[in-house]
Amino acid sequence: MAVANLKELAELVGGKVIGDERIEVHRVAPIGAAGAGDITFVASPKYLAALKATSASAVILFPGVEDPGLPAIICRNPYLAFAKVLTHLQVCRPEPKGVMPGARVAADAQLGEDVTIHPGCVVGERVQIGKGSILYPNVVVYDDVTIGADCTIHAGAVIREGCRLGDRVILQPSVIIGSDGFGFAPDGERYFKIPQVGIVDIEDDVEIGSATCVDRAALGVTRIRRGAKIDNLVQIAHNVVIGEDTILVSQVGIAGSTEIGRHCTFGGQAAAAGHLKIGDNVTIGGRGGVTHNLEPNQVLSGLPAMPHKEWLKASMSFAKLPEIRKEVGRLKRQLEELEMKIKES
Amino acid sequence: MAVANLKELAELVGGKVIGDERIEVHRVAPIGAAGAGDITFVASPKYLAALKATSASAVILFPGVEDPGLPAIICRNPYLAFAKVLTHLQVCRPEPKGVMPGARVAADAQLGEDVTIHPGCVVGERVQIGKGSILYPNVVVYDDVTIGADCTIHAGAVIREGCRLGDRVILQPSVIIGSDGFGFAPDGERYFKIPQVGIVDIEDDVEIGSATCVDRAALGVTRIRRGAKIDNLVQIAHNVVIGEDTILVSQVGIAGSTEIGRHCTFGGQAAAAGHLKIGDNVTIGGRGGVTHNLEPNQVLSGLPAMPHKEWLKASMSFAKLPEIRKEVGRLKRQLEELEMKIKES
Amino acid sequence: MAVANLKELAELVGGKVIGDERIEVHRVAPIGAAGAGDITFVASPKYLAALKATSASAVILFPGVEDPGLPAIICRNPYLAFAKVLTHLQVCRPEPKGVMPGARVAADAQLGEDVTIHPGCVVGERVQIGKGSILYPNVVVYDDVTIGADCTIHAGAVIREGCRLGDRVILQPSVIIGSDGFGFAPDGERYFKIPQVGIVDIEDDVEIGSATCVDRAALGVTRIRRGAKIDNLVQIAHNVVIGEDTILVSQVGIAGSTEIGRHCTFGGQAAAAGHLKIGDNVTIGGRGGVTHNLEPNQVLSGLPAMPHKEWLKASMSFAKLPEIRKEVGRLKRQLEELEMKIKES
Repeated sequence: MAVANLKELAELVGGKVIGDERIEVHRVAPIGAAGAGDITFVASPKYLAALKATSASAVILFPGVEDPGLPAIICRNPYLAFAKVLTHLQVCRPEPKGVMPGARVAADAQLGEDVTIHPGCVVGERVQIGKGSILYPNVVVYDDVTIGADCTIHAGAVIREGCRLGDRVILQPSVIIGSDGFGFAPDGERYFKIPQVGIVDIEDDVEIGSATCVDRAALGVTRIRRGAKIDNLVQIAHNVVIGEDTILVSQVGIAGSTEIGRHCTFGGQAAAAGHLKIGDNVTIGGRGGVTHNLEPNQVLSGLPAMPHKEWLKASMSFAKLPEIRKEVGRLKRQLEELEMKIKES
Repeated sequence: MAVANLKELAELVGGKVIGDERIEVHRVAPIGAAGAGDITFVASPKYLAALKATSASAVILFPGVEDPGLPAIICRNPYLAFAKVLTHLQVCRPEPKGVMPGARVAADAQLGEDVTIHPGCVVGERVQIGKGSILYPNVVVYDDVTIGADCTIHAGAVIREGCRLGDRVILQPSVIIGSDGFGFAPDGERYFKIPQVGIVDIEDDVEIGSATCVDRAALGVTRIRRGAKIDNLVQIAHNVVIGEDTILVSQVGIAGSTEIGRHCTFGGQAAAAGHLKIGDNVTIGGRGGVTHNLEPNQVLSGLPAMPHKEWLKASMSFAKLPEIRKEVGRLKRQLEELEMKIKES
Repeated sequence: MAVANLKELAELVGGKVIGDERIEVHRVAPIGAAGAGDITFVASPKYLAALKATSASAVILFPGVEDPGLPAIICRNPYLAFAKVLTHLQVCRPEPKGVMPGARVAADAQLGEDVTIHPGCVVGERVQIGKGSILYPNVVVYDDVTIGADCTIHAGAVIREGCRLGDRVILQPSVIIGSDGFGFAPDGERYFKIPQVGIVDIEDDVEIGSATCVDRAALGVTRIRRGAKIDNLVQIAHNVVIGEDTILVSQVGIAGSTEIGRHCTFGGQAAAAGHLKIGDNVTIGGRGGVTHNLEPNQVLSGLPAMPHKEWLKASMSFAKLPEIRKEVGRLKRQLEELEMKIKES
């Protein structure tokens, strides 16, 4: 853990100090738990009351608060500033340790400078690993894989043959890259396995969550573009393309050959059917299900996915469905009686 | 496998023997498959007919059956008694084997008595493991983890830095504890990773299923309280709290910072959105989706979750929706015609 | 990679050559990416236009096209033929390597001829592995497991005690076979673990996807029958039976004791509740939820599952629900006014 004064931190985040800029902090803490030596953050006016009671030494704050009551770094995006300060103070890349005893690296693998390969890792033939990358214990890298620089591959992750990772890629524990796509040709009642001879290509700055599976392409490439962030237990099928800076929350499933654009967001347990094209800046609500191509710049929910606001209204009406049904029955009888009455009169 | 007579077993489960209490059994078997030497169990009157045909040597039975037809242990909760007898007869904790060849344990790790660490395990610095705990092959324990006594950690599980497990915790294969929470601060179109510097704290008697992921807190603690039982492939996001004796069935997803009370049950594939408070004794049906805070003592289903009975009725009406829609159209036309007729008359 | 001429390949797939049957190809490529030396395939008339522009050396084609424009293998099932040609040209089982350094195999394990066990694998006591089977790095096989011939077990898979695999079984990375079923007997507010003392039996020609979990039976057997294909991140609970040639797509969940028939298909994220019987040739659409027993030969969707066509119609009406509700309100008022008018007149 490092120590920094407010002047340094304000420069780091592009903010302005109110109060004594020589104040030193060593930790970031939530507003209720912060004490002396801690810096906290307030990203929304609703936490301003809590700010009065905090014991923090300083606060990262949005502009416009007249008297914060303690030394503050004022900036337009306090949440981003919080992330940067936290990284600065509390994240420390471990010292490189080389190939540790108990790791097995093929003789012809090429390792960059300052690589760390923990015990229990198995690295195959012709593998390349860029400088500064870390493989935590029991990672398995099959033959012909390329891993870029400064990657962090957590314990138990598996990267199968021929797949490629860019720079600064983070794989959480037990991520599986390049498993066979789910492809079978019907042969009467039985199924004949279609060999999956493509690869997975993961570009720079991608992060992938625990136990998420990215299947290799049948032919060609399954591609996760620069900056995409994928949560735990997500399924990415063969030949899928995930666009730059797109976010897939936990337990999402994307079926084969679907292409998702840039800066999209899929909420938890959402899904897309296969062979679709989904435009840029599309947001799918939690458990939404996309069954057709989508133009850019939409917010959808439900299965099949519909405009989010319509889905909200329809969902509210759903609980009333039995009542509506009864009402329709009543109206029908009432109308029949009325017709009868008129006929009789 | 052990052998026991009915007297011993009746004492074990707090039951009463009908018939010869010296009868010995060595195995528990379902009523159709049981033979000589087996004890079976009948927890519901609908299996009484099957009891007449069984070849079992004895039965665990609810009270009130006049002539079971074979030696019986009578008790109020035969299902619980079955579990206890099965544990007594057929579960045998393996002999402790110490640190086995091929396991790598840091020099400063503290291991209690009778610990077993199988080949391929990697145990980091300053780790503490309580007496009698077993780590099956290829478990990875990062630095500064604390594991209590009599835990069972199955093959391939990963426990990341600083996390804590209580006593008698069971992790099934490939459980992942303490992976990074999914937190990113938007920086224009791109995302800046928010370091996840908190931990996971798992209390006594928790069981967690295969490939389930419990993310570490951003700041602070993700907590699984005493006695919670979590099935396979479940996602527990950062800063979640799961209450005592709460059950999460397979493929459930709980989003960040949500707190679930005591003795709740989430059915398979159910989910809760983030930052919610869910009271005690709440049951969410399979694939239910909780989107708002919940008072205790409710049974809900659907997305958004509604009282289970209402959901059942609404679901029944859902299939009738096209018919209702047509009927409404018909009524509209009929009414218009009638109005016309009246106007004309 | 192999080379073959069209004559050989036509014999392999039971097709007929149009053009020079001595043409040699060494790779299968999609129609847009194929070049000299590649064979491509056209399984649908909509790709015939693309065929004119391809640089492929040959094509696998359905019958009835008069002039393909390049050498062709004509056959009734081009997709199946593609899979067979791809397997022939591009799949090469690795040379057997025996027990590699860094693998730990119990002294009394029985290994067939030509077995390969990669570094980091741990194979327990009394395990049997049939000839030609491959265990990739860091696979864990507990005691008393039986694995058949020509199986492929990818990195990080775990097979727990006593489970059985047939011949030619493929487990993708991190598959978990035989973890404890999720069984607990309520004891007041708390839960008492029901020991799971059964096994998992996986028959010949089954393939199971990454991070999929198949739980062992409480008592008895969880069974995956011959030829079933299971995708990634699927949950199969204790005592389930999956029928022959049945397909479960990614993230499906099957609850305890449910039996699924032959040649069924469950779409992605679909589920079945526990203790059900589902007949042969049943198809459940993506995210469908089965809550009751099902007769054979049906296509269902939705939760609870209903005939797929009805579900489609009901889903289309769902978005109109707020409108329907308003319309019903309007009709009600209109009718009341009309009744009033009639009463007055």
